Amino acid sequence: MKCDYILKWEPVHFYRRKTMFRVCGYAAQQAKTPLIPYSFERRDPREHDVVIDIKYSGICHSDIHQVSDEWGGSTFPMVPGHEIAGTVSKIGTQVTRYKVGDRVAVGNFVDSCRKCGPCQKGLEQYCIKGAIWTYNGFETQNGKTTPTQGGYSNKIVVDENYVLRIPDNLPLDRSAPLLCAGITLYSPLMHWKAGPGKKVAIIGLGGLGNLGVKIAHALGAEVTVLSHTLKKEEEAKKMGADNFYATSDPDTFKKLKGHFDLLINTIPVEIDVNRYLKLLAVDGVMVVVALPEKELSIGAFSLVSSRRSLVGSAIGGIRETQEMLDFCSKHHITSDIEVIPVQRVNEAYERVLKSDVRYRFVIDVANSLKCKD
Amino acid sequence: MKCDYILKWEPVHFYRRKTMFRVCGYAAQQAKTPLIPYSFERRDPREHDVVIDIKYSGICHSDIHQVSDEWGGSTFPMVPGHEIAGTVSKIGTQVTRYKVGDRVAVGNFVDSCRKCGPCQKGLEQYCIKGAIWTYNGFETQNGKTTPTQGGYSNKIVVDENYVLRIPDNLPLDRSAPLLCAGITLYSPLMHWKAGPGKKVAIIGLGGLGNLGVKIAHALGAEVTVLSHTLKKEEEAKKMGADNFYATSDPDTFKKLKGHFDLLINTIPVEIDVNRYLKLLAVDGVMVVVALPEKELSIGAFSLVSSRRSLVGSAIGGIRETQEMLDFCSKHHITSDIEVIPVQRVNEAYERVLKSDVRYRFVIDVANSLKCKD
Repeated sequence: MKCDYILKWEPVHFYRRKTMFRVCGYAAQQAKTPLIPYSFERRDPREHDVVIDIKYSGICHSDIHQVSDEWGGSTFPMVPGHEIAGTVSKIGTQVTRYKVGDRVAVGNFVDSCRKCGPCQKGLEQYCIKGAIWTYNGFETQNGKTTPTQGGYSNKIVVDENYVLRIPDNLPLDRSAPLLCAGITLYSPLMHWKAGPGKKVAIIGLGGLGNLGVKIAHALGAEVTVLSHTLKKEEEAKKMGADNFYATSDPDTFKKLKGHFDLLINTIPVEIDVNRYLKLLAVDGVMVVVALPEKELSIGAFSLVSSRRSLVGSAIGGIRETQEMLDFCSKHHITSDIEVIPVQRVNEAYERVLKSDVRYRFVIDVANSLKCKD
Repeated sequence: MKCDYILKWEPVHFYRRKTMFRVCGYAAQQAKTPLIPYSFERRDPREHDVVIDIKYSGICHSDIHQVSDEWGGSTFPMVPGHEIAGTVSKIGTQVTRYKVGDRVAVGNFVDSCRKCGPCQKGLEQYCIKGAIWTYNGFETQNGKTTPTQGGYSNKIVVDENYVLRIPDNLPLDRSAPLLCAGITLYSPLMHWKAGPGKKVAIIGLGGLGNLGVKIAHALGAEVTVLSHTLKKEEEAKKMGADNFYATSDPDTFKKLKGHFDLLINTIPVEIDVNRYLKLLAVDGVMVVVALPEKELSIGAFSLVSSRRSLVGSAIGGIRETQEMLDFCSKHHITSDIEVIPVQRVNEAYERVLKSDVRYRFVIDVANSLKCKD
């Protein structure tokens, strides 16, 4: 038995020592516990890999869902973070797209099967075999499966085909949220053709919503924000909103009945979907981009009576994410953010849950994460 | 006061006597009561009206929903019936589209505002002011609002612009169900582009489903029927189905995961929508055409994970309904039916609720409805 053990495990151990390096980060050790410092290993760059020194990492509501295991299937320890902005510090021997020093980004996924229909169409986020999520996912290398760990860490190693370029005129900190929040809004706005003559409403003016308003405005649509109260009206209008209504006022739902071509619901908690569906014109589309824990309750009448659609949209593919970054560069769009040191991440989570952030927390990884080795 | 009364009401009374004629039919006198013989008045034809001698009237599940007031707001007495086939017996002075003796049909609505965006686009069923439903609706004439009454009656008077022509090669009895069931399936199959290379599933092989299979097959799609058991497999394949699966077999949902481009749910009772959504490929669309009483419960993940859509579709506009009739003529498509005398309508309702009909009841109005005057 001892002999078997050595034969079986020594090569793996040898491989690990040869091909891994240590990084430091912040992790949840189990569901619903505070994030604490955590040291772990990443692979040395393979031929097509890029090593990125992480400068900033955005905090996404889905980080909280996952460290709380609200969607089920979370694995721990978990280093969250999929809004990653940094610079290239090392490249594999065959890398052609990036060089050391380049300003780059990583979003929600770091690989996919590359062969299925969606991957071939540039919709890697819908990969039939499942995209490899940047964290709380698994990647298999040489037959060995390891968990992925995200951007609340000082370095990440990613295949160059899954790395994005941040245009020179966009600051890294304010760009980090584009990698999830930005593409989450850009993709459906493009897919369902927001533009001149289209009436678009963004439900919720938070981390996603602020980017939705800016992008929809830049696309030329008439943009309305539907927010719980009128508190953020002035800010929304500065971002490009044409109209602002309080959803706590029942008149809003009477006045706007049948008005919109496109509604994007960015609220990650339960809402009365039927009330909102009725705000859609004939052939109108309501896009769900946030993932509340509870199921949505839909009256068939709300859909059937005006050929309305309730659809889902998840982030975007690599090509589209780069297109979004270039679009944001052209239109000078970045997220409104509050920069925090990594040590305040747990407090930030609490504030996100209270919608107490304008509009996205971004961790200043480079300046706050202290690594021992 | 008496004087006032006379001044106010005499002209209306005079007008009614001069411009109405009596018809006979079957009506529900109140919610959830059996239909019984009922005599009522219809208007004499106006300039653009066509008087139709009703030969056949299909029984639609929505007739049952409405006489049971399951959707709320039903008005009684109610003469149901919106799958009407007959011949023109009289025309108004300005009618140009039809002449006496023409084989014609009336579907779900008999008028609409004609001015709103949807009406202008030929989507009268989504008229902003509300289409005038063939029964259980209201029409206003000279400031007087009267309830509409449907096809379980010997005659109907309809504006020629809301009358359809039944092509010569289609028998009237088997064509009647095309006016609701047929267009209910044709419209979404066309709108969401069923055709060669598209994988379409029809959920439920009943009054709607049998026409869905035939139309989708004629459009060139790969057609799958998802039915509770395999009982109707042979019949479905004769109608044009390529595949048939039992939804009572859990393997069906494993095997067909991510398979379809288009699902059309024809089942008017609650189903587990999430299970079916997962059968859709990326960008797949599930269309709801039936209206169950209970709300649908949807997990946002089911939509978001593959950019799936849950949509509603209601019948079709006048232009599209005529197009459907012409398509059915070309492809020799009619409904499988069971013809009954009007006296058996209550029994037929009970059988519809037990799915005990292959596949649509059609009332032989001309030969069974006995009118006293």
